[in-house]
Amino acid sequence: MTWIDLPDGTPFGPDNLPLGVFRLGDEEPRIGAAIGDHLIDLAPVASAQMLDGSQLFNQPTLNAFLALGRPAWKATREWLIDLVRNENNRDAVEPHLVPRSAVTMLLPFEVADYVDFYASEVHATNLGRLFRPDSEPLLPNWKHLPVGYHGRAGTVVASGTDIVRPSGQRKPPTADTPTYGPSQRLDIEVELGFVVGTPSKLGTPVSVDAFEDHVYGVVLVNDWSARDLQAWEYVPLGPFLGKSFATSISPWVVSLEALKDATVPLPRQDPPVLPYLQGDLKNPDITFEVHWNGQLVSTPPYSEMYWSPAQMLAHLSVNGASVRTGDLYASGTVSGNAKDQRGSFIELSWGGREPITVNGEERTFLQDGDEVTITGWATASGGARIGLGEVTGRIAPAVS
Amino acid sequence: MTWIDLPDGTPFGPDNLPLGVFRLGDEEPRIGAAIGDHLIDLAPVASAQMLDGSQLFNQPTLNAFLALGRPAWKATREWLIDLVRNENNRDAVEPHLVPRSAVTMLLPFEVADYVDFYASEVHATNLGRLFRPDSEPLLPNWKHLPVGYHGRAGTVVASGTDIVRPSGQRKPPTADTPTYGPSQRLDIEVELGFVVGTPSKLGTPVSVDAFEDHVYGVVLVNDWSARDLQAWEYVPLGPFLGKSFATSISPWVVSLEALKDATVPLPRQDPPVLPYLQGDLKNPDITFEVHWNGQLVSTPPYSEMYWSPAQMLAHLSVNGASVRTGDLYASGTVSGNAKDQRGSFIELSWGGREPITVNGEERTFLQDGDEVTITGWATASGGARIGLGEVTGRIAPAVS
Repeated sequence: MTWIDLPDGTPFGPDNLPLGVFRLGDEEPRIGAAIGDHLIDLAPVASAQMLDGSQLFNQPTLNAFLALGRPAWKATREWLIDLVRNENNRDAVEPHLVPRSAVTMLLPFEVADYVDFYASEVHATNLGRLFRPDSEPLLPNWKHLPVGYHGRAGTVVASGTDIVRPSGQRKPPTADTPTYGPSQRLDIEVELGFVVGTPSKLGTPVSVDAFEDHVYGVVLVNDWSARDLQAWEYVPLGPFLGKSFATSISPWVVSLEALKDATVPLPRQDPPVLPYLQGDLKNPDITFEVHWNGQLVSTPPYSEMYWSPAQMLAHLSVNGASVRTGDLYASGTVSGNAKDQRGSFIELSWGGREPITVNGEERTFLQDGDEVTITGWATASGGARIGLGEVTGRIAPAVS
Repeated sequence: MTWIDLPDGTPFGPDNLPLGVFRLGDEEPRIGAAIGDHLIDLAPVASAQMLDGSQLFNQPTLNAFLALGRPAWKATREWLIDLVRNENNRDAVEPHLVPRSAVTMLLPFEVADYVDFYASEVHATNLGRLFRPDSEPLLPNWKHLPVGYHGRAGTVVASGTDIVRPSGQRKPPTADTPTYGPSQRLDIEVELGFVVGTPSKLGTPVSVDAFEDHVYGVVLVNDWSARDLQAWEYVPLGPFLGKSFATSISPWVVSLEALKDATVPLPRQDPPVLPYLQGDLKNPDITFEVHWNGQLVSTPPYSEMYWSPAQMLAHLSVNGASVRTGDLYASGTVSGNAKDQRGSFIELSWGGREPITVNGEERTFLQDGDEVTITGWATASGGARIGLGEVTGRIAPAVS
């Protein structure tokens, strides 16, 4: 399949070829493609071949590449596949294979707008039970539209960035007034993020069928959440400080093209959705693994998500809102039906009332020094594993 | 005061000198300072004087200037004041005075993150009564923190941009299921927007007292709102499509420095706020005028706002969220106690039940072709009027 040596079980085989931005020593950041334990330093390879647009790889973000649109994405993917499969390219590529252990991976793109959805029925039901125990867990709108909101683009950070425990206001139900202090209920959310390449025009909705024309690929997202801040602040305008301190994303953007054989039909939507949400109803078939201080604590399955990514894009633009290159929209927490498939610790520990054991210690929410690593992969029809790599972060103490 | 002829009642006297981005014919967009009916084309003036950083004015946005920080903002203001007051500068400046009627004003800065607050007690109370008639209008958190949420930065548009009527889902209380179609309850929100220049560091809150180190100035904001879309979608994660189709801002950014003598003490906050929200408790003393198809329908006063802009910034960053150059945060709708001081049409028409008469026609919400222009000005201690100019927009029919 490829002339490059690949370790067993690598997330980055010759069918994947995700793109990211790396820094090697003191050199300027630029774009690479992951293959096995290496990356291909694309700028010098493209430059030596005198490719049109080779300077696009000599950039500190993927944004210029993303803006090129689908035909260029496909042409680039075909070029990459030829580089790694065709033995004739060995001499041109081998000098530019860099061990991934030698580089620092940066934020892969500059985030324009960040939207967070809420597309898992299991997660929305669990959170409804925990946040609003006295009413129906799913609100009346939930099965009619993919509920979402805008998050903070400026605090989307690269995998590996320390997460400083946020401080803010929280009010336990039994207290009369709020107090200020570090969050005591710091949590994760396992999500899949969709990266927009091709912009749309203000006033013109993006149809469900145009999803692959606009979205280049996916990243892993950990939407860190301070549940105590969130519970006090979120009415009536939604989550704000409970989420805005940090959102971590994985460094490698995996293309939809690489995932195209790794999809499953959407679960049945009942009641039927309005026409603008009908069409391309499939989900990427991705399984996540959540490692808390190295211990596997959950394996959320993307296949059970109620709303498809194409529906999310159609909904967020149905009012004429434009999308831009670098827009990121995330699925919302991915939670499966089984307890060990829940994608947040508030669900795994059922609001903190049912601690889980991590390396022999009881845990409900995150403690200082805790590290969470989320991985994910899809299995394509031929059995090839298309990995998303990982997104990781460690909790640093609150600033006093 | 100035050697430049000024028309009576101009918003842009020699104490104001707001900055904006203009396009003159086919020339590249660049930065100007407004004075009376003219603007000073700053790039050639600064270049002829061989000023450091004169290339900053030869830019299509104010972002590079905003990033310079407060000492540079003050030095620039002193230079501008000298240009317009000192007769000796006439020969250097006069050739670069451009009639404002000859240019197109563009979006003055590239918006990084956009946050919208909800800082008027009158407005929050009115909306609570209209959206949640069966419960207390102000929710328990409202007087403890400035409630806010993130809006869509990519759809902040220049004044004068047509507003295409958004379509989407709405469900009247009496219907069983939602329908899709153009919004029937299209509204405005009169707001003041605060423009961040100096960035902050992730993990480090911005204190109340550091407000003027980070915020350069203000713009007028019209946060167009589709009330029917908003009412159906907004639980539990807040407003999304009801707001994200467009937010218009005025072209001239008025500096805090120009407004420094035009402030009033904040209304009393009771209960007392937490220590991180204590400190610089004043509001700019701005009065707005709302013109609907040319008729003055409301004059909201900023002086009655419950939360100060410094408190909003301290709150939005108290969890360690960083701010970036180009961040825009808006006050939320400005509504005064009197009926003719309400800053939205849902309040002026009390949910559509009490139409108002505009040029002899009954109006509740916006009709296609309607135009709304919001102006605003502050009165400095010496009596000088510091105008914000205007933000305007006309409703275009929904895309079918």
